[in-house]
Amino acid sequence: MPVHGRPSFTGVFHTSPDGYLFCEDLQVKTVQDEFAKASEYGSPFFMYSKRQIGDNVRSYVEALQRHDLPYILGYAVKANNNLTILRILRDLGCTAVLVSGNELKLAMLAGFSTDKLVFNGNGKTQWEIELAVTHDVMINADSLFDIDHISSVARQLGKKVKMLLRMNPDIDPEVHRYLATGSAVSKFGIPETDLDTALGKAGSDDNIDLVGLHCHIGSTITNIDVFRATVSAMLRYNNHVQGRGFRLKYLNVGGGLGINYRKYIQVCMCIPSGGELIDSIADKIKESGLCLILEPGRSIIASAGILVSKVIGIKRNETRSFLVIDGSMTEVMRPCLYGAYHHIQLIEPTSGTRRYSVVGPVCECGDYLAEDIELPIPHEGCGLAIRDAGAYCASMSSNYNMRVRTI
Amino acid sequence: MPVHGRPSFTGVFHTSPDGYLFCEDLQVKTVQDEFAKASEYGSPFFMYSKRQIGDNVRSYVEALQRHDLPYILGYAVKANNNLTILRILRDLGCTAVLVSGNELKLAMLAGFSTDKLVFNGNGKTQWEIELAVTHDVMINADSLFDIDHISSVARQLGKKVKMLLRMNPDIDPEVHRYLATGSAVSKFGIPETDLDTALGKAGSDDNIDLVGLHCHIGSTITNIDVFRATVSAMLRYNNHVQGRGFRLKYLNVGGGLGINYRKYIQVCMCIPSGGELIDSIADKIKESGLCLILEPGRSIIASAGILVSKVIGIKRNETRSFLVIDGSMTEVMRPCLYGAYHHIQLIEPTSGTRRYSVVGPVCECGDYLAEDIELPIPHEGCGLAIRDAGAYCASMSSNYNMRVRTI
Ligand SMILES: Cc1ncc(COP(=O)(O)O)c(C=O)c1O
Ligand SMILES: Cc1ncc(COP(=O)(O)O)c(C=O)c1O
Repeated sequence: MPVHGRPSFTGVFHTSPDGYLFCEDLQVKTVQDEFAKASEYGSPFFMYSKRQIGDNVRSYVEALQRHDLPYILGYAVKANNNLTILRILRDLGCTAVLVSGNELKLAMLAGFSTDKLVFNGNGKTQWEIELAVTHDVMINADSLFDIDHISSVARQLGKKVKMLLRMNPDIDPEVHRYLATGSAVSKFGIPETDLDTALGKAGSDDNIDLVGLHCHIGSTITNIDVFRATVSAMLRYNNHVQGRGFRLKYLNVGGGLGINYRKYIQVCMCIPSGGELIDSIADKIKESGLCLILEPGRSIIASAGILVSKVIGIKRNETRSFLVIDGSMTEVMRPCLYGAYHHIQLIEPTSGTRRYSVVGPVCECGDYLAEDIELPIPHEGCGLAIRDAGAYCASMSSNYNMRVRTI
Repeated sequence: MPVHGRPSFTGVFHTSPDGYLFCEDLQVKTVQDEFAKASEYGSPFFMYSKRQIGDNVRSYVEALQRHDLPYILGYAVKANNNLTILRILRDLGCTAVLVSGNELKLAMLAGFSTDKLVFNGNGKTQWEIELAVTHDVMINADSLFDIDHISSVARQLGKKVKMLLRMNPDIDPEVHRYLATGSAVSKFGIPETDLDTALGKAGSDDNIDLVGLHCHIGSTITNIDVFRATVSAMLRYNNHVQGRGFRLKYLNVGGGLGINYRKYIQVCMCIPSGGELIDSIADKIKESGLCLILEPGRSIIASAGILVSKVIGIKRNETRSFLVIDGSMTEVMRPCLYGAYHHIQLIEPTSGTRRYSVVGPVCECGDYLAEDIELPIPHEGCGLAIRDAGAYCASMSSNYNMRVRTI
């Protein structure tokens, strides 16, 4: 049951009294055993909970409806482009937010109606813009050159494109530098100093219908004040744009809400839910009369997925014990890339505990899943789950060392 | 022409007097234009020089022959698993060094004879070991549990497996921590303190033929003393092993030789060539009477490849100019992953210079190829080359943002 508007972290993935991890009603170990029988490539694999996806979406939707805000809830496909997940999200009333032409093709395949889709990107190519314009997708223009490119495609196709301007409000999201997209040194968005030039271009162009402003200042954001500051900056831009004679329809504040990857060990660290994020910005949005567009990825899908893996062997040296598992950086890149934490747990009962570094079989030191964590003592072949692997794991995966991809 | 045994860095990729980059006799821009006509996915692409591969291999081989050393030169497939490249290397007399069962399958497809292949890995799975044992591939055992697993497969298959023990000599290779595989905190290899246990297991096992010792202490190594220290440690282990009554045949010192990624801007930074590496360790190896196994990846293939990309647009903010190109972290992950430097140059003539950060179209701040470098001022559509992209680029690439893979 959701508590205080939060998704039920404990309800969907839960451990039975006899020590087995369940995903909804399925014992994960049983699934692992079946997969192992079916193929030598049967491990590792991702497993997702439809129920958890629903909980995460409802956290946003209930708050949006409670505040009676007009909205578009656009799931950021880059977080996880699994087709089944996209169809579930479509059925839950989400639209999709895209960062490439291929994501757009996939969203169409998943059955999203294209006129509510949003297309992002700092380096859109000709064919991608053509595809988006042809299908009446809303486009967030990232730069002055991007406006020119979009305009020229729209002109060639004889279309009027619904455009939002992606602003760079230079706000520090207080996250890893690779995840801070809204600061002045980032490659994304239009700086405030170029806003008038952008308006000049878009306003005088018969093929552009300027419908809104957009920003996305980063990912894994846990401080809700950052979102309030962002909304304030965006509404200030909106006033300026109104002063220049434009009437906008949308305020797109992007995605970026973090999740508590450490909730299993640090229960008291409160990270806002989707609903709480909405609660904190609703008043300002309401006042503006604009339709709110949201682009959440991680907060929708991260907690709904696990990577199921198994122990290949255990080795020790003078300072450490290594748990070598068959999952790796090729499925879960985030620890290697950002030093990110993912909770790891055994999916079956064992006894005793010990400290381990959990590493994969890839020939690269960066191939670790966790450094020096405490775990129940597993046997060879023992199953384990890497939690919160729903976002930015499968979609960032590679075939390094010719490993097979796991979807 | 090679100078002092070095591969000819300037000969193979060179700029014509009128400012076009050539790869051997091919003007790169012409190739780019043809590819662009053929497909919307025609850019970016990798381009490799067969001649440069030959130069790099010969640097090792000439020195090995000059010192009259028995050797196996095993190309580390993980650096680049392009099938055509593997066939070229096979024709040049190389064998292949593998880190997964799929790499072994590929090496067989490329026509390498399996009994000179070497199979590495800290987390080999059952089917991978079976494949290697079946085909008489040499196996570097990484840990005590790995010896047990290999032994049990060999017993089941009724085979005698040629095994080397991968030692962890705890030597600092003076490189990025993700590339340091031979230090005590690394997950790789058998610590000296476990050598006797390992010998006990391997020596008493009828299905194991202990043929050598192995180590690989890291990658991008530029200090030749590190290799000399490694060889000394390995020969010390060899003496110990001899003292225990074993007669080994091979000393496998791994790969790891770096290349000078900055040679275009720092001509005086001398990084040893393959030949110079051999020169520096030949005396000790010779004395030991062992056959030398080498596992170079980067030093064979890095300098032979470029990523050819083009400019999508140029944007400025208060502090920086960004060159947005259609190549990205999904093809060249090394800057994002290790902060690595790759030289970037235009492949066609322009005039003037300016400072740029070169970034890709992936929606991630980590998606940069170079930060704040000086470049001739390009136009939109202008072609550029990311140099030394032959190793650990294509093989580490991903489909993040649903980008198409470029091979
Ligand atoms: C423009 C844009 N919108 C939305 C998102 C989704 O962000 P998150 O998954 O952090 O919610 C991203 C991801 O970085 C993005 O680049
Ligand atoms: C065991 C082993 N041998 C050889 C190599 C090749 O190393 P390099 O490309 O640095 O020569 C690697 C790569 O890390 C490796 O893990």
